[in-house]
Amino acid sequence: MLKISRQNLRTPGPTPVPDDIVEAMSNPMIDHRGPEFLELISESTERLKQVFMTRNDLFILTASGTGALEAAVVNTLSPGDKVLSVTAGSFGDRFIDLAQAYGADVQRLAFEWGEPVDPDAVRKALHADPAIKAVLVTHNETSTGVTHPLEQIAAVVKGEFNKLLLVDAVSSLACIPLPVDGWDCDVVATASQKGFMVPPGLSFISMSQTAWQAQKSSTMPRFYFDLAAAQSYLERGQTPFTPNVAAMYGLWKALINLLDEGMESVYERHARIGQFTRDGVKNLGLELLVKDETYASDTVTAVKIPDGVDGSKLRQLAHNEENVVLAGGQGKLSGHIFRIGHLGHVSQQDIEEVLAALKRILSKLGFSAR
Amino acid sequence: MLKISRQNLRTPGPTPVPDDIVEAMSNPMIDHRGPEFLELISESTERLKQVFMTRNDLFILTASGTGALEAAVVNTLSPGDKVLSVTAGSFGDRFIDLAQAYGADVQRLAFEWGEPVDPDAVRKALHADPAIKAVLVTHNETSTGVTHPLEQIAAVVKGEFNKLLLVDAVSSLACIPLPVDGWDCDVVATASQKGFMVPPGLSFISMSQTAWQAQKSSTMPRFYFDLAAAQSYLERGQTPFTPNVAAMYGLWKALINLLDEGMESVYERHARIGQFTRDGVKNLGLELLVKDETYASDTVTAVKIPDGVDGSKLRQLAHNEENVVLAGGQGKLSGHIFRIGHLGHVSQQDIEEVLAALKRILSKLGFSAR
Repeated sequence: MLKISRQNLRTPGPTPVPDDIVEAMSNPMIDHRGPEFLELISESTERLKQVFMTRNDLFILTASGTGALEAAVVNTLSPGDKVLSVTAGSFGDRFIDLAQAYGADVQRLAFEWGEPVDPDAVRKALHADPAIKAVLVTHNETSTGVTHPLEQIAAVVKGEFNKLLLVDAVSSLACIPLPVDGWDCDVVATASQKGFMVPPGLSFISMSQTAWQAQKSSTMPRFYFDLAAAQSYLERGQTPFTPNVAAMYGLWKALINLLDEGMESVYERHARIGQFTRDGVKNLGLELLVKDETYASDTVTAVKIPDGVDGSKLRQLAHNEENVVLAGGQGKLSGHIFRIGHLGHVSQQDIEEVLAALKRILSKLGFSAR
Repeated sequence: MLKISRQNLRTPGPTPVPDDIVEAMSNPMIDHRGPEFLELISESTERLKQVFMTRNDLFILTASGTGALEAAVVNTLSPGDKVLSVTAGSFGDRFIDLAQAYGADVQRLAFEWGEPVDPDAVRKALHADPAIKAVLVTHNETSTGVTHPLEQIAAVVKGEFNKLLLVDAVSSLACIPLPVDGWDCDVVATASQKGFMVPPGLSFISMSQTAWQAQKSSTMPRFYFDLAAAQSYLERGQTPFTPNVAAMYGLWKALINLLDEGMESVYERHARIGQFTRDGVKNLGLELLVKDETYASDTVTAVKIPDGVDGSKLRQLAHNEENVVLAGGQGKLSGHIFRIGHLGHVSQQDIEEVLAALKRILSKLGFSAR
């Protein structure tokens, strides 16, 4: 029998899954073209709209977050379309790779990894090239622990230039405020395994009327991620293809929990645990990757590995001796940082245990933490 | 709390999930870039190869079956490529729609719904147009309950013409014999919610060396379903994007169960229950959609709705009064047939209950069953 012991899982997704969501997922299978499923998808879609703070159309896809990002691109753009992609990390880069794979003509606006996107640079780029049709933004860059100033970016993209705005909200939505309609975001994509505390395997995407307008003339090929098909099936309480029913049971429970708690409380909870983590890390004498804490993410914290300390050893000791699972650095930050996820199902005690473990491990590795 | 009562779920997928698989799925989340996941994906991939009877590369995708079919097409073909698609039902048609969405030049070879594909017609079509690069086949047509003679089709496509062969095995693999290497199938796609008895949300795809050769020159756009990325990550025991970990726990257990039982026994079990279902249906005085029982599927049986009987009423009564969930007809068979799934987790008693329920319902609807 598969037997995985419970860890202090501090990767920035998947997060641990609360028991009541595990229990919900254990419900028997149903016909995904039957009346129970109609109720399940209808109620969950409506509640998801509340969490997205949107009246836009919203779809539940059987895929992880990148699938929803692919849906965002292929349903609104055509090969050759000029798009501005702002990036300051590996998920910003992935969004670019995705758009390029489908033939978008991407203008890349890059910032240092660990820095926030500068809305003024976005303004200049849009001013310089009026042919740009859409802007691709990562709200929370999971690889660096930076929350980009999406509200200000959206004010430029939508308010000043009226371009299509596609948002990767995989590690922000349901953790950090993202009023989709309030900020006028056209397409917003996120996934189940972060703030929703459901296992990976589902992603969610909202489409504004402007996005649907773009969809009408979009010629990128699509089939599994065709949102027009998703829309026509959703009207009958179905999905075009067999959905991940078990995770949808979990989502159903997760949404009730989140809305019962209240989204303001959810955001406060993340702000509190984010601050607690950053303070604790600094108290150990460690340095955050993010210099200006205004932009520090409340879902994941990237910590610089001190000189002389072997980062992979650090994570190995945390895993083997302390039962604490940390994330490593990605791309060019590999070996230079480790990351502590503090989103979704996480308590202050979980973080206290991480900090205590770090103190012991760092001392073993020759760094005397404070 | 979400509370779904156990039904006699006789849709041809999702199938009911055995308790030990539900239990496996309840294991705590892990880091999908960590050592436990490496073990999980490595062992499951190897065992899946045994079930596929292949030494080809094999990938586990976080998507339902249509996602794997999209992967089959976009990783081997280029826009404008001539392909021959044989179809005799709504899933054959879907495969065509998919290939056309990505720009394939599809030659459609259609047969009556309820009839098998004729290998000789495939031979003639390939003979008539040497420019055809690939053949797309549905092994088991879920919408009609027909198992197409894939061995004979493959002998023509591969043995006589040496074309690329892409197979939709969603409702056949792990139920009906499909020796992937024995029949020389280049790309074979299936999903978790049928013979594997795992909830929907995962699909599986095998790629032959010939398929990889085709992949090298294939120019269809792909990102989420890019199998070259899947291959490079699998070498490190990972997936490019966050995988459906919970269903992978279930799959791990399911594969152990299937291989412990032995695939020959699995096939016999399906053959037995398929025959039992067809005999039972005919004993009620009902007519099968499939005329030549040689091609009758051992995973799903399509039954003609008798004249004067309201099919949707029949399914409604089965659901509400008998706790039996039947599938309806799809596309042009809607209203003309109902379907009984008998794949994966199903017992003879389940089918006996279906037959007894049908007898009662039909009598209420004015048809006197024998």
